[in-house]
Amino acid sequence: MSTDLSRTRAELLDEGDPLAGFRDRFAIPEPDLIYLDGNSLGRLPVTTLPRLRRAVEEEWGRELIRGWTHWIELSRQVGDQIGTSLLGARPGEVTLSDSTTVNLYKLAAAALAARPGRGVVVTDDDNFPTDRYVLAGLAPKVRLVHTDPDDGIRTADVLAALDGDVALVSLSHLAYRSGAIADLPGITAAAHSAGALTLWDLSHSGGSVPIGLSASGADLAVGCTYKYLNAGPGSPAYLYVRADLADELRQPIQGWFGTLDQFAMGPDYVPAAGIDRFLVGTPPVFGAYAVAEGVAVLAEAGIERLRGKGMALTSYLVELADTWLAPLGFRLASPREAERRGSHVSLHHPQAWQICQAMTEAGIIADYRTPERLRLGPAPAYTRFVDVYDALERIRDLVAGGAHERYPAQPARVT
Amino acid sequence: MSTDLSRTRAELLDEGDPLAGFRDRFAIPEPDLIYLDGNSLGRLPVTTLPRLRRAVEEEWGRELIRGWTHWIELSRQVGDQIGTSLLGARPGEVTLSDSTTVNLYKLAAAALAARPGRGVVVTDDDNFPTDRYVLAGLAPKVRLVHTDPDDGIRTADVLAALDGDVALVSLSHLAYRSGAIADLPGITAAAHSAGALTLWDLSHSGGSVPIGLSASGADLAVGCTYKYLNAGPGSPAYLYVRADLADELRQPIQGWFGTLDQFAMGPDYVPAAGIDRFLVGTPPVFGAYAVAEGVAVLAEAGIERLRGKGMALTSYLVELADTWLAPLGFRLASPREAERRGSHVSLHHPQAWQICQAMTEAGIIADYRTPERLRLGPAPAYTRFVDVYDALERIRDLVAGGAHERYPAQPARVT
Repeated sequence: MSTDLSRTRAELLDEGDPLAGFRDRFAIPEPDLIYLDGNSLGRLPVTTLPRLRRAVEEEWGRELIRGWTHWIELSRQVGDQIGTSLLGARPGEVTLSDSTTVNLYKLAAAALAARPGRGVVVTDDDNFPTDRYVLAGLAPKVRLVHTDPDDGIRTADVLAALDGDVALVSLSHLAYRSGAIADLPGITAAAHSAGALTLWDLSHSGGSVPIGLSASGADLAVGCTYKYLNAGPGSPAYLYVRADLADELRQPIQGWFGTLDQFAMGPDYVPAAGIDRFLVGTPPVFGAYAVAEGVAVLAEAGIERLRGKGMALTSYLVELADTWLAPLGFRLASPREAERRGSHVSLHHPQAWQICQAMTEAGIIADYRTPERLRLGPAPAYTRFVDVYDALERIRDLVAGGAHERYPAQPARVT
Repeated sequence: MSTDLSRTRAELLDEGDPLAGFRDRFAIPEPDLIYLDGNSLGRLPVTTLPRLRRAVEEEWGRELIRGWTHWIELSRQVGDQIGTSLLGARPGEVTLSDSTTVNLYKLAAAALAARPGRGVVVTDDDNFPTDRYVLAGLAPKVRLVHTDPDDGIRTADVLAALDGDVALVSLSHLAYRSGAIADLPGITAAAHSAGALTLWDLSHSGGSVPIGLSASGADLAVGCTYKYLNAGPGSPAYLYVRADLADELRQPIQGWFGTLDQFAMGPDYVPAAGIDRFLVGTPPVFGAYAVAEGVAVLAEAGIERLRGKGMALTSYLVELADTWLAPLGFRLASPREAERRGSHVSLHHPQAWQICQAMTEAGIIADYRTPERLRLGPAPAYTRFVDVYDALERIRDLVAGGAHERYPAQPARVT
């Protein structure tokens, strides 16, 4: 890349961006706000509110109970839409259900039950908290691989943790803090060689990087839809089960939506065939419609083009950070090679908490993450190169000017 | 009651109904449709769509990630609204979370863990299928009390099933098919005497009958919000844990929203104090707003007045059924005393399936339930006495005329 630090360069990058027009697919009520947090909560697609209005008014309000004749299909329809357009899964391998955490619980429990005599789950000490907590609550024994919080999981370390006691390897595909990408195909193959199953959390990679789930032979996966999938706060999660594996597994929350014949209401729980057995209760109808709208925009943009733009945006961000922010005490806390990270980048600074507060006041929204990290997520569907330029320039100026010093140091609890 | 079978009498009952005006709080896009299925899916309150529009456009769209500073309170706020206005619970005893089935799983597992050495769960063979399935998947042993499907659970039969092996008694407060009400305070007291906990499914009683949870000493409860609470298809469920019990219990799905300090993201799961420890993943923001709107209407109507009208509506329905439908082969499949049933009534008829199809075509929406039952739910917030009159008259005429004979007998699977 060139060392041109002018804003004109950012403008030229935007002019050459094949996805530039997709910004108009999202509501941008404050054009001056720089939003680098689509990896926490994606923006609102312009089609979502009209779709929800129609669903509420014309479906719930008018069809009433009769709406279930088509709502009943939503979990699977939207699951297939996510799976085939973003995850590299086959139809029938993905469904929409519950929250990411509940799905992780169901699939991890199913995996443990499918490997009797093996009681160990392998995960890493930098995995997202809810993943670690769920596994700790479920598995007879959790074997923690140490991961560098900036550089991600080393495949060799996971391999060293595998033996005949391991039932399941459960990792995040893309680290929530550093954005480092784990070697999903390599670790999956190694786990299979050791007789273990794999369960991937795709929350930060779904919609930001191609995943190739089916091609990798991955067994199980879960992910959220409120980040890159732009489905709104608290939107329902998805789960993936490899097609040939589904009928071998039993999940522990035996709900009526997971039965073979739901309205027979018979005495015994008989699990449905295939992916449907991983459903539990009444599906979230309006949430499913919001997911469908969010995913439709990404599908049209194309996951390969989103990935390309994501790498270009983060590379540009890292270049500006190296030049402008490193002299101010910042350090890159993500992999330096674009291929090894997703669409967000972390920067370490001892005063990251205060800087994050000052940034918010300066109209730049990003995340603080413990310990002492700014997490900057230029979601490729709607973030411009000029947004990255303006954000980094403003961060430089406010830290150089000491604007963040006005904010008190805070405990690590933020919302 | 009088034996006046004129429509004028129904009109007079509507004129004297203190809740008559509440019908205008709901969208009624097809005024000629008679909807007797609010016990399956409640109607759309007129304030819900504007509230959702504001939440989507002005909160998600504009506040973006900053919205979490207030969204984070929603589970508890709306839980308290449900608990204090409809369930007779104290603030801090109810929260909004997941689906009814997932909540049932969490609380049943927590109860079993709190009674080590006892592995028996008592439930009844007429309990709602998802309840029976969840318990069968969790408990070392399920002890099934036989219940008359028309007359409900006999307290004496539950008492006879109690002994020192019982960890938990888990029942529906109000039977999904017959509408029979279980003796919640009596069974709770008996369970406590035997050293067991109680877990009540309030899905059909929440918003239709007063419950008095706290006064009864009930330990645990769950319920849905898409029936009488009018929160829409797939809306989030609630759970109740008695205040002094919460900190003694541990639920199995250890998610980040149930931890003491969520964004510390520390190595170990430390459960939050009180009701919050029963949360799991990201709460359903828009679903919570829909629940708040649905419950606000009921709270204004008042649960005692709703109960009074519910008894009057079902009594009127039973009276007309006795007179008009019994000669056509119908039999009441619900308790005959209004005090012993909720706001829905079941009628048995050998051709109930075909009759239900013919009713739909005749503009009357009700449920078919196995075996051979019509379930008629005149939800008190928006159902008029003339709706009951017109429905029963039309059912009489179509069955007398053989209109249902045109429909083929169907397997018991309906949606």
